[in-house]
Amino acid sequence: MAKIVECVPNFSEGRDKEKIERIVDEVRKVKGVKLLDYSSDADHNRTVVTFVGDVEGVSMAAFNMTKKATELIDMRTHTGGHPRMGAMDVIPFIPVREVTMEECVEIARDVGKRIGEELGVPVYLYEEAATRPERKNLADVRKGQYEGFFEKIKNPDWKPDFGPSEMNEKSGCTAVGARVPLVAFNVNLNTPNLEIADKIAKTVRFIGGGLRFVKAMGVKLEDRNITQVSMNLVNYEKTAIYRAFEMVKMEAKRFGVEVVGSEIVGLVPMKALVDSLEYYLQLENFSIEQVLEHRIAE
Amino acid sequence: MAKIVECVPNFSEGRDKEKIERIVDEVRKVKGVKLLDYSSDADHNRTVVTFVGDVEGVSMAAFNMTKKATELIDMRTHTGGHPRMGAMDVIPFIPVREVTMEECVEIARDVGKRIGEELGVPVYLYEEAATRPERKNLADVRKGQYEGFFEKIKNPDWKPDFGPSEMNEKSGCTAVGARVPLVAFNVNLNTPNLEIADKIAKTVRFIGGGLRFVKAMGVKLEDRNITQVSMNLVNYEKTAIYRAFEMVKMEAKRFGVEVVGSEIVGLVPMKALVDSLEYYLQLENFSIEQVLEHRIAE
Repeated sequence: MAKIVECVPNFSEGRDKEKIERIVDEVRKVKGVKLLDYSSDADHNRTVVTFVGDVEGVSMAAFNMTKKATELIDMRTHTGGHPRMGAMDVIPFIPVREVTMEECVEIARDVGKRIGEELGVPVYLYEEAATRPERKNLADVRKGQYEGFFEKIKNPDWKPDFGPSEMNEKSGCTAVGARVPLVAFNVNLNTPNLEIADKIAKTVRFIGGGLRFVKAMGVKLEDRNITQVSMNLVNYEKTAIYRAFEMVKMEAKRFGVEVVGSEIVGLVPMKALVDSLEYYLQLENFSIEQVLEHRIAE
Repeated sequence: MAKIVECVPNFSEGRDKEKIERIVDEVRKVKGVKLLDYSSDADHNRTVVTFVGDVEGVSMAAFNMTKKATELIDMRTHTGGHPRMGAMDVIPFIPVREVTMEECVEIARDVGKRIGEELGVPVYLYEEAATRPERKNLADVRKGQYEGFFEKIKNPDWKPDFGPSEMNEKSGCTAVGARVPLVAFNVNLNTPNLEIADKIAKTVRFIGGGLRFVKAMGVKLEDRNITQVSMNLVNYEKTAIYRAFEMVKMEAKRFGVEVVGSEIVGLVPMKALVDSLEYYLQLENFSIEQVLEHRIAE
């Protein structure tokens, strides 16, 4: 079974279709790499790309995309609703098959080094690749955004891991890291009251004293006149989907509110699904090797 | 995405390793076919093989195995605990990917015809490939077993679909069919009382007035001093795993007994798992296309 690494780079262009295609093309061009998905948000002015491949292919595609993004995107004129600090804003590498987190950290370091040295863009390593604890959390790294980084980068605590120690005016700076896959999971409530969804989100999420690997917020679904607890499960192996789901259910009871549905947004690893099913069916000794499609893919 | 058919032939040799290997080798030899599993039971004196591949490859492997089995196995001296009617006892074809049941019925007919004409073995089409309703159920077809077929075959109602209308003394006869994948699913109870497990099995299964596509029996797990409702879900798309599970739980309550675990035996299609998880998480609009491994395999 071949090694497979996933890469989910985010770059700061979500409106100009031609530029987006030219940047994404850099993934399509690389052998041994498969483009799974990309979606642009005009409000955010940002594109999220998902691709998988072997170590060399994924490394090359990530670097080539970054090179093209620094050519085509000018951060001096960039606006958009999503926090960002560079043309290629963030590049996470994610172990998928027969690859360890350590190997993904190594890829992040190699690609980060090349971006710093060859493209002259300051690079911060984050999450599992972080070189100090304050740089683990992407939100902390990105704090101040592009505009604030001209000052932030002068602080010795925020000296980049690779590349120049001055800001790149045109391209900003880039976060490169390694992490487990995210699962985007939303639970729908039969109330139009956003306050309730927000209160539940606050009890379920880590910063509110909830589950360690859950980020959450309340969201209104206008067209259905209901609300939703919108979550990111940032480590589904340690905080499984079922646990977040059952906890939302439990908290909803206090408000006399019921869960009327849920959704998984985007891609999800099979193991995240199997882990939750094991809980509900009280499955003993189940192995992902028993999944027919898994065996066929081997 | 390539078409994939699964084939799970059962042949009547479970003791002689050399013979077993020579028969299984016929699968290994065929290009475009992948041997996923095979396991022999000495008590049953029977081997179950699982392989997948494209239409031509699977058809060829099934025929070649049957040819080898008719050469190496002599039913006149065969004994074993499992019902059987021929050297190659039964060959089901199962749609897995981009293949319809109709195509699997066609494969069953083609392979059945070749076995009948080229190997001189009487062939009965069963399940979805059956030519009359009485031949749908494999247990009905096989009734009387090898020994009884010398008489049964003379009954005009049991004229074979292909091949000679007389019994093949050395090789018996063979059932060839098309069906949806089986899921072997067992639910463990915290009682050593087999009578209770049996009673629950009887209410859950089809013939006892239970779920349409469930076969079930009570089994004692001596080493753990508990019992089990052992089930075959013969159409997981219509009777999902969660439904059988919840029904066993419900029936167990009447006896003050609790479910302490469950197991899925052997291979299971991803869709069977996803269907049940959708129920428990109340998932809306989930598609198997969202499973990362599924996308990678495409």
